[in-house]
This record gives sequence, C-alpha cells and structure tokens, in this order.
Amino acid sequence: MKKYIEANKERFFDELFSLLRIPSVSSADEHKPDMVRCAERLAELLKEAGADSAGVFPTKGHPVVFGRKILDPALPTVLVYGHYDVQPVDPLELWKSDPFEPEIRDGAIYARGANDDKGQLFMHLKAFEYLVKEGRLRHNVKFIFEGEEEIGSPSLAEWASENKELLSADVILVSDTTMISERVPSINCGMRGLSYIEIKVTGPDKDLHSGHYGGAVANPINVLCDIISSLTDNDGKITIPGFYDDVVELSDEDRKKLARAPFDLDEYKKFLNINEVKGEKGYTTIERTGIRPCLDVNGIWGGFTGEGAKTVLPSEAHAKISMRLVPNQDSRKITEMVCRHIADTAPEYVRVEVKPHHGGDGFLIPISSDAYQAASKAMQEVYGIEPVPSRGGGSIPVLADLQRILGIDPLLMGFGLERDTIHSPNESYLLSQLFKGMESIALFYKYY
Amino acid sequence: MKKYIEANKERFFDELFSLLRIPSVSSADEHKPDMVRCAERLAELLKEAGADSAGVFPTKGHPVVFGRKILDPALPTVLVYGHYDVQPVDPLELWKSDPFEPEIRDGAIYARGANDDKGQLFMHLKAFEYLVKEGRLRHNVKFIFEGEEEIGSPSLAEWASENKELLSADVILVSDTTMISERVPSINCGMRGLSYIEIKVTGPDKDLHSGHYGGAVANPINVLCDIISSLTDNDGKITIPGFYDDVVELSDEDRKKLARAPFDLDEYKKFLNINEVKGEKGYTTIERTGIRPCLDVNGIWGGFTGEGAKTVLPSEAHAKISMRLVPNQDSRKITEMVCRHIADTAPEYVRVEVKPHHGGDGFLIPISSDAYQAASKAMQEVYGIEPVPSRGGGSIPVLADLQRILGIDPLLMGFGLERDTIHSPNESYLLSQLFKGMESIALFYKYY
Repeated sequence: MKKYIEANKERFFDELFSLLRIPSVSSADEHKPDMVRCAERLAELLKEAGADSAGVFPTKGHPVVFGRKILDPALPTVLVYGHYDVQPVDPLELWKSDPFEPEIRDGAIYARGANDDKGQLFMHLKAFEYLVKEGRLRHNVKFIFEGEEEIGSPSLAEWASENKELLSADVILVSDTTMISERVPSINCGMRGLSYIEIKVTGPDKDLHSGHYGGAVANPINVLCDIISSLTDNDGKITIPGFYDDVVELSDEDRKKLARAPFDLDEYKKFLNINEVKGEKGYTTIERTGIRPCLDVNGIWGGFTGEGAKTVLPSEAHAKISMRLVPNQDSRKITEMVCRHIADTAPEYVRVEVKPHHGGDGFLIPISSDAYQAASKAMQEVYGIEPVPSRGGGSIPVLADLQRILGIDPLLMGFGLERDTIHSPNESYLLSQLFKGMESIALFYKYY
Repeated sequence: MKKYIEANKERFFDELFSLLRIPSVSSADEHKPDMVRCAERLAELLKEAGADSAGVFPTKGHPVVFGRKILDPALPTVLVYGHYDVQPVDPLELWKSDPFEPEIRDGAIYARGANDDKGQLFMHLKAFEYLVKEGRLRHNVKFIFEGEEEIGSPSLAEWASENKELLSADVILVSDTTMISERVPSINCGMRGLSYIEIKVTGPDKDLHSGHYGGAVANPINVLCDIISSLTDNDGKITIPGFYDDVVELSDEDRKKLARAPFDLDEYKKFLNINEVKGEKGYTTIERTGIRPCLDVNGIWGGFTGEGAKTVLPSEAHAKISMRLVPNQDSRKITEMVCRHIADTAPEYVRVEVKPHHGGDGFLIPISSDAYQAASKAMQEVYGIEPVPSRGGGSIPVLADLQRILGIDPLLMGFGLERDTIHSPNESYLLSQLFKGMESIALFYKYY
C-alpha cells in the first residue's frame, strides 16, 4: 500500500493529529468531556474509512467505540482492538513541545498518544481504508476501541460479555506493544499481568514537630520505607510468601528461543543513561522483563516536599506499588495475597491501609497459530527479516479478559520502539514505523 | 502584673494579631516582603513598649530586629532572643481557620506563629512594657529578633560576631520552647542539636514504562526506601558507623532527675491517637526525645502521586531527612559523616546525591546558674509549683552559636504546651499561658 500512503500522507497526518489534539487522559475526571469527543471523532474516522456502521457506546466508565464492515458472514472475521485513552503528561516541564499539539521532529511525531495507542490504532484504520477503497478486502472487520486501557479497563469486560455476538470474530488483532528494533522486527507471544495497590501509613493524627516527638513516635515515612524495602531482597526477588507459587519456569529450550532476540546491554544502558542494570539474580535482562514478575514503586509521597527544610514528623505517608505478573499468576489472588501480607505484617505503632487499584492476568499466544504465521509473513515481507517471537513486559489486562469472554486469541502486532518513551515526557512515534505498520497490517489480511 | 494585663488586654490582642496577620514564612522566597513588614512592625512595637531605640538591620538573609533600653551600664543586662519567622502552613486544608487571620477559640489563639514564636516573644515585649511604664525596670534590656530560625538561622551568627558589643549582656533570655503541662511547669536545661540533609536518587534519565523495564532497571524509589530503611535498625538505633561516638551517656542520677517529670504514657498516646510509641530500646519516651539522638524522614516524593494508577518507573526520588543530636555531638561532623556514608554505600545502578541543609549543636544550661534560679522562683510564684528541669527535644541551633560567639549562657523559659501543635495545622497558644508567661517574665526581672 506504499503508493496509497504516498498519495494520502497529508490527510493521514491531519486525521491522526485531530485525535492527538484531544487530551483524552482517562485517569483524570476533568477530561471526561475530552473522552467523549475523542470517541466521537474515532467513530467519524471509522465511517470515513469505510465501515458500514460505527458508533459510540456508553459503559459504566468512558465510552467504547465500535464499528464494523461485514462483507459476508461466511468469511473470517478480524476484531481490531485499540484504546483511545492516554496516560497523564506530568512532569509537563520535561516536554519539549505541547503534549497535545503534535509536532513532527526528525522523522517522528511527538505527542502524548503518538504511539500509545492512538498512533498504533490509526494504522489499522488506514490499512482497512486502503483495502476497502482498493477493493481488496476479503474479511469481515470489526473495531473495538476503549477509553480505559490506561486505568485497567474496568468497564470493557462487562460490556464485552453483554455484546458477545457483536464482537464475535476469529482473531483479536492488536497494535499496542513494541518490537525489538527497526532492524529486528518481533511479535509478542506473551504479556505480563499486573497487580496495582496503594498503601497509606498513618502515624499520629496530626503533623508533629520532629524535635519534640522525634525518637519517641513512629514516623510513617520511615515505616513505609521499611515496608517497601522488606518486599524485595538483595537478589531482586519478591519476599512475599507464596508470590512465586504459580510462576511457571521456562524450559531451557524456550529460554534459548527468547535469547535469539539480539540484545546489546551497552546500548540499553546508554539509552537509559545508567551505569548498571539491576534485576532478579540468575536471569538475563530480556528474561527479567519478559518471563519474570517484578515489583515497582510507581509513586511515593508524604511530609514536607517544598523548598527548604521543614522539621516535621508527618501524620501520613503514601505509595503506589505495581507488580508485573507472568502467565499463570492470577492477578486477583496475588493482589489479595500482597494486601493481606502488608496488613498482617504492619507494626502496631502505625495504621496501615492497603487498597487494590486494578489488575489483570498475563497470557501467551501460540506461535503455531494461523494469525501468528500470517503476521510473521507480513512483517517479513515489509522488514525483509523474519520477526523474532518475544515476550512483552507490559500488560494489557483486558486482552486476557476478552480472550476468556469471547474465546478468541489475541495477536499482538506492535510497531512501537523503545525510543518512543511511552508513558513518559516526549512520547513519540517514528513515521517509518507508522507507515511500515500500515503495510504490515494490510499484508496480514492478505496472508490470514 | 495581672492588673496591668487586665487593663490592656484588648490592646495586647490587637498588637499580637497585627504580627500574626503577616505571613512571615522564611523558607519561601515569595514572602520576602512580608519578612520586612513583620520586622518593621516589631521595631515599632519595641519603641511603643519603651525601648530607647529599635531598628531593622539587614543581613545576608532576612533582616534582624534589634532594640534596647539602657538604664545604667553598671546594671546587669538581659538579652531577649526571639524569632518572627514561621513555618510553612501546608497542609492548608487541615486548618480550621485561616492560619494568618488569628481567631480566639476555647481560650486559645489559633494562627501560624500563635506560639512559635510570635506569641512567646510578645510576652517579653509586654513584660518589658509593664516594667517600664510602672517604673519597676532595674536592668538594661536588649532585644534581638531574627527572621530565619525556622530555616536554621544562616545569617544571625555572622551578624552577631560583627555586633558583639551591641549584644553584650549577662544572660540570653528565650521563650521558644514548651513546658511539660500547665500543672507541671518546667524549664529547659538542654536542647538537642540538628543535622538536616536532602537525598536525590536518580535512575534512568527519563520516566519509563514500568512494564517494559520493571524488573531489569533499578527503581529509584525502591532504592531510596532501601537506603532510608538501612539508616536505622529494629531497636530504633541509627546504624551509621560512628554516629554515637560523641554521645554522652547520662548518669543514673541525672536520668532519675529527668524522670521526676510526671509523664502519662496513655495520655500521650491518646493525644497523638497512636496505639503504641516507638523508639530506641532501653530508654523512656522522655529520654528518647530529651537525651537521645534520632533520625526522621521529614518529606519524601517521587513518581506519580496523582489520582488513579500510573504504571511508571520514575527517573528520580527525593527525601528530606533530619537527625536530632544531643549535646557534645558536632552537627557539622555528623552531617558530613552521614552524607559520606550514604554516598559511599550507594549502589552502582543509581546516582545518589546528598546535600546538607542546615544544622546546629545542642547545649546544656547549668541548673545552678542565677538565671535558672530566678526563672525557677518566678515560675513557682506564678504556677504555685517548683518547675521541673527538663530536656527539650527540639533545636534552636542559633543559641549554641550565640553562646559560643557572645560567651553568654541562654536561659529557656518556654510557655508552650504540647497541645499547641506548632509546625502543624491549627497551631495555637493558650491565653492562660500567654498571660502567665508575661507574669513569670516580669518576676524573672525581680529575682534576677
């Protein structure tokens, strides 16, 4: 579809930018109206691309967008999943350009959502448009775009169970992940699950003068640090009893397969500007993010954080903690286990509250499946190299739910790159990947 | 001076409130003009109270106020020290009334600075005014009020060394501390020193997606928690090598003296709304705050702290940490020792920067001194009970400096109470203590 892209490039940019300009941050209430605007704009674009019908459907949370083109019920059906919500943009001061005013610099689009996931779902709209306009479409195609992926998709599972018929298909096609590099295309054959909790430690019921009370009254920040520090050991292992019970150890053969993915540790460290990596003893960096669980503090706050020095013994301390899980770990079970462990081991001199945020299970995709093979052929044709099967470290909890509810396997054709720094300031998406992604997706339909 | 107070009460309130209404927060640049306004207002009040002269003097930082009345160079001279700066007011939402619009509720003045230290220094102004107006003054009196006590008095020491003559006196009289209770007056015969540092831990040079990197890249918040947790052990002891080298163990006799101070642990816990106290093994609560050093995290921040759940592996984590020291511990030496220890033990996979804020040494006051005895008589007359010698857990680093520079012992006649919650929301000062304080100070001049 190279020619088609060349001929329509400027319009493609206008359309994608119209999506990127809408600050659809799902975690912030003040953006509710933007969520609706973004959903309506997507439905518009679906119709313009050639869908028979497309609409915005309410859920308990942010609306979902559903559209479809049915050629012939007898033909195989592809269900495209994507999400139009984005992560918050803070710290805003680190953005080189307005996160919601897309800008093209050195061959990449810079904006929140440029990759995750507005840029990647847009590739599916345009590949679909190309197939329709050129009369090459040989499948029924359905699109489901949600607005709550970044907050754990609290509503889509329920909506999906109520609309199984509408969503029936043969494969769930998703572009919401990364590939190893432009020179090393890869296809995700597994994703990690997620458990996300928030801890609140309360000491005295008021902030205290640290001179008058320091040494005699437990400081909730010190206690929170002790708790967090106790959750992992020096070997990078999580110390919560039972945490690894359901973790499946990979066979040496599977580990060899994963190791085929070329990886340059020095490049990796240089890209992150770190002297050393750190992770679970006995595993490689790729394995640490691909096939092993982990625990990260995503945010912490308490006491005086302004300029200068305030001598206060604060009343409260807070932390947000997420754990990445591997396939076969049950996120509900883990979340419950961790909350209980922290509550049970809390010292008597403080009050500790632990509340679960959201979670989701990891999953695996059989390399032998038709969909995987079609994607592999397609990407090999575009990139000139056979894609490597890889394990994604991230989580798309809702895909495990859809797999369960609809009984359809997802396929993760992701075209993002490490350099895109999604979820961070200056998120970007390479134009080369945007266009190669469109071509690959168009070819997927050819080989599927 | 009871009658005098009765006759002038309303004016006293107007004058004190005019000071409390000025938001003289020394740690925030935007309040610089308020600092000057507050200093000028104080100089005004000094003259109205009967000082021969009073003025505002510039320093490298916020100005100092100096005033005096010299009756006869041959007479003993009392140097009154106080500070007109206050702590920040956050968290503002916890204040029941505007921190800078004083309000009288249930017999107490509520405002930032009501006690610390505008309320307490005001007692000296009015006791002085009473002695002058009633012709009872028998001493030369000098007043030095600084605007940087809450940020560690970075400028006063230098100003004092340049103005030794001006400040020459026989005793430094200070009301900037608490007494045990209204029923148990006490006089501070020692204060703790302070060492205050700030830590910054940097991991990757950008925020990362916790799914793509979690498990392989050190998380600066987790590392910061490990560092903080490692600074103290389960017995509440500070683990930094050499930290206790200069700590003088009190004799059993001295510990018995301190134990004379009545203390109700249940009341204490009820006041703080905690189930249990926590501190260094082998010491009582009073000893833990009076004669033992401690380490408290005063503030911590890093990563995503907004509503909802952001799955980020942040680039930075920060903490403000203060240590209370005991007499004979050198705050410069300790600060250097702690900064070095943290830097030296920092793991290779992150960058750790430690910067000292401010500090100061603790000090002791001989109970046998004339000044202590005069204060004891005065307070016994007002409260009907002999005051207990106590150790203050807080720090007034500048007093150790003035003691060294001017060669004058300070005397701490503090009238604050625990209930005043200084440095916290809803700081207050009991009217009964305000007035009893004035009477006690007036009597101090009688017996000194």
